[in-house]
Amino acid sequence: MRRQTGLLGIVLCTVVTVWVPGLLQADETPKAGPGKSLRVLIAYHSRRGNTEKMAVGVSEGVRKVAGVVAVLKKVQEVSKEDLEAADALILGSPTYYANIPGIMKTVLDDWAWKMKVDFTDKVGGAFSTGGGQVGGKEHVIVSLVLFMLSNRMVVAGPLYQGRDEKDIWGEPGASAMTGPLDEGVSEAELDSGRRLGERVAALVKKFKGRP
Amino acid sequence: MRRQTGLLGIVLCTVVTVWVPGLLQADETPKAGPGKSLRVLIAYHSRRGNTEKMAVGVSEGVRKVAGVVAVLKKVQEVSKEDLEAADALILGSPTYYANIPGIMKTVLDDWAWKMKVDFTDKVGGAFSTGGGQVGGKEHVIVSLVLFMLSNRMVVAGPLYQGRDEKDIWGEPGASAMTGPLDEGVSEAELDSGRRLGERVAALVKKFKGRP
Amino acid sequence: MRRQTGLLGIVLCTVVTVWVPGLLQADETPKAGPGKSLRVLIAYHSRRGNTEKMAVGVSEGVRKVAGVVAVLKKVQEVSKEDLEAADALILGSPTYYANIPGIMKTVLDDWAWKMKVDFTDKVGGAFSTGGGQVGGKEHVIVSLVLFMLSNRMVVAGPLYQGRDEKDIWGEPGASAMTGPLDEGVSEAELDSGRRLGERVAALVKKFKGRP
Amino acid sequence: MRRQTGLLGIVLCTVVTVWVPGLLQADETPKAGPGKSLRVLIAYHSRRGNTEKMAVGVSEGVRKVAGVVAVLKKVQEVSKEDLEAADALILGSPTYYANIPGIMKTVLDDWAWKMKVDFTDKVGGAFSTGGGQVGGKEHVIVSLVLFMLSNRMVVAGPLYQGRDEKDIWGEPGASAMTGPLDEGVSEAELDSGRRLGERVAALVKKFKGRP
Repeated sequence: MRRQTGLLGIVLCTVVTVWVPGLLQADETPKAGPGKSLRVLIAYHSRRGNTEKMAVGVSEGVRKVAGVVAVLKKVQEVSKEDLEAADALILGSPTYYANIPGIMKTVLDDWAWKMKVDFTDKVGGAFSTGGGQVGGKEHVIVSLVLFMLSNRMVVAGPLYQGRDEKDIWGEPGASAMTGPLDEGVSEAELDSGRRLGERVAALVKKFKGRP
Repeated sequence: MRRQTGLLGIVLCTVVTVWVPGLLQADETPKAGPGKSLRVLIAYHSRRGNTEKMAVGVSEGVRKVAGVVAVLKKVQEVSKEDLEAADALILGSPTYYANIPGIMKTVLDDWAWKMKVDFTDKVGGAFSTGGGQVGGKEHVIVSLVLFMLSNRMVVAGPLYQGRDEKDIWGEPGASAMTGPLDEGVSEAELDSGRRLGERVAALVKKFKGRP
Repeated sequence: MRRQTGLLGIVLCTVVTVWVPGLLQADETPKAGPGKSLRVLIAYHSRRGNTEKMAVGVSEGVRKVAGVVAVLKKVQEVSKEDLEAADALILGSPTYYANIPGIMKTVLDDWAWKMKVDFTDKVGGAFSTGGGQVGGKEHVIVSLVLFMLSNRMVVAGPLYQGRDEKDIWGEPGASAMTGPLDEGVSEAELDSGRRLGERVAALVKKFKGRP
Repeated sequence: MRRQTGLLGIVLCTVVTVWVPGLLQADETPKAGPGKSLRVLIAYHSRRGNTEKMAVGVSEGVRKVAGVVAVLKKVQEVSKEDLEAADALILGSPTYYANIPGIMKTVLDDWAWKMKVDFTDKVGGAFSTGGGQVGGKEHVIVSLVLFMLSNRMVVAGPLYQGRDEKDIWGEPGASAMTGPLDEGVSEAELDSGRRLGERVAALVKKFKGRP
């Protein structure tokens, strides 16, 4: 399956991507009026790097949409200003015992409860990583979606199309299996992240009435 | 709690509401261009009438938003044309053994699988009724949300505000407890339905770039 | 609904209950062999006292079953020894943004990940409290159930019976709505907690082959 | 991955398995007292054969446990007598739009509602198949678990052990990804089914006090 090559590509991408948003952020003077870029904040928790790889995939998807900027941050580094400046928020989480890790959920709780961020009408999407076959990767995505709906957001997931053009479907989020049976983040899993990013970016544009 | 009075009001509302959409539909010549009313289809399954009462509440919420029309139908009566004409879709379901009744899920499956309806970018919302305290009313809402995301929709829930104006929150959907401990649909539960309808109607308008 | 009287009863119960387990624990010399009492640990997180009231209800249910001891502790005070000594574990959690609070999930993560507790074959049950109508009280219970299954436990919920004896059902856990629409813990909600406790205690006895 | 060989083995197994339980059932005179075999009913829905393959895997796991018989049936062919004779029930379902297919849920609803089967204290487990990466395979398992808890059952999932013997975990159920990215049922996925069957069979034995 040429996984080796795939991973090499990912590593290179990571290096490039992690830097590029930094530069963009530095450069990007907030413009007034309708010309201002829309901003998608991708906030994630990652201990071993897998969720971060997925986050990079998501950011690649966001950047396919003209006029939309991707900002990548670990949840612990996200400020109130980051959250308020974001037109969309994509959350990524590993799976600890079939749910969001406590260390990450505490940060999310604080955003809403202590920082009192108003998330109303921000567009949201979710992705996860997890080791088991039925270890809770999906439950993490459902949990992130419910967090968003409980904070008045509007939620969407990645779009897919089969070989037959009429065969189309969506999924509630993007995910990667990273356990012993299927380690790391595969190209197909990265692709799900890219689709999620592109979907949310396209929606936020439509939602804001941008052409 | 003046439940009796409340129920009386609901019964009257039902009669009025069930007819009014009918009249509106009959009257409503589909207009060309941006002036055409946006359409929210409220599709539900109801055996004893509780979910129907909630559906009526949802339709009242939709009608608070100018330029948006509510169409109420039992899922079994929804045609492919109804689905395709809808800009938004709000699904309501009772709870059978902690999930959507099989009889209703079969209809939903058919919409996507046999009718091949394309739900892409329709705005969605969910409501449920159920008898138990932890009997699955929420799981039904999550299930409806996942059905929608799997069919490429964009999902939102009702918005709330506490007595303190700064205390705002959302919920994944609207629901009514209809079991022995708390029979029927209370005014607060109807209110959750109205909020869901208003929320989805306001979003679809924003989404379609209507003023 | 005589809520006032009910609450008074609860307060008195609390005082008695919080002390009694303490005394029992002190008295209880671990006996060798089949005569040793079976132990149900009820571990909960509570900020405002509602989840604690439910925990007390659960402990009352446990104590209805002869030969089974209830131990009540806040999750933060539970030691590795407490967990290993427990034949059953009932977890109780408030609802923060439709899920377990981060501060509690972090403790649960640590039990499994850092303390490396082996939960295999312990019997489990779950309860929650939450303010909203569809605010995630059920999602918290599902999350606790998935935590338990991910840690090799065996899970059950409270049993109910309608006025007609043939009308019987179960629920995935016990819960109390504690928000503005229905503040505090009602008698019916406490009853759900008692049923959960009694169910888990009866099961652990059967599971251990006790008469 | 020697998938071809694996599938061949599965096909042969299917033939053998489908017949063997039939013979066993025919032969098996219900014995009085503690010597009677315990019975695990594996009931599934399968359109293209994938869920049936998983069901066969589950039955192989059940048969690893001495004194426990596996009975495989499509849900549509399960009688009230089958359900009442079962000491444990393992349900298997494909994923239609992130949930149990309506056609299967209708059968489950009928078992509880129309047949009025009493499932109290039966041990339960769940497995699923599904095409997408985050297409709802897990939500199906959670839904089956909630169906069981709502019907007073006791629920468990498969057990796993890493290469390091101390690394042990469980999962809420067994599942197979059967979509374009990873078609069919792999050996690892079948293994999850076998683990589920073995787990439930071992538990029902312990639960019934068998040596």
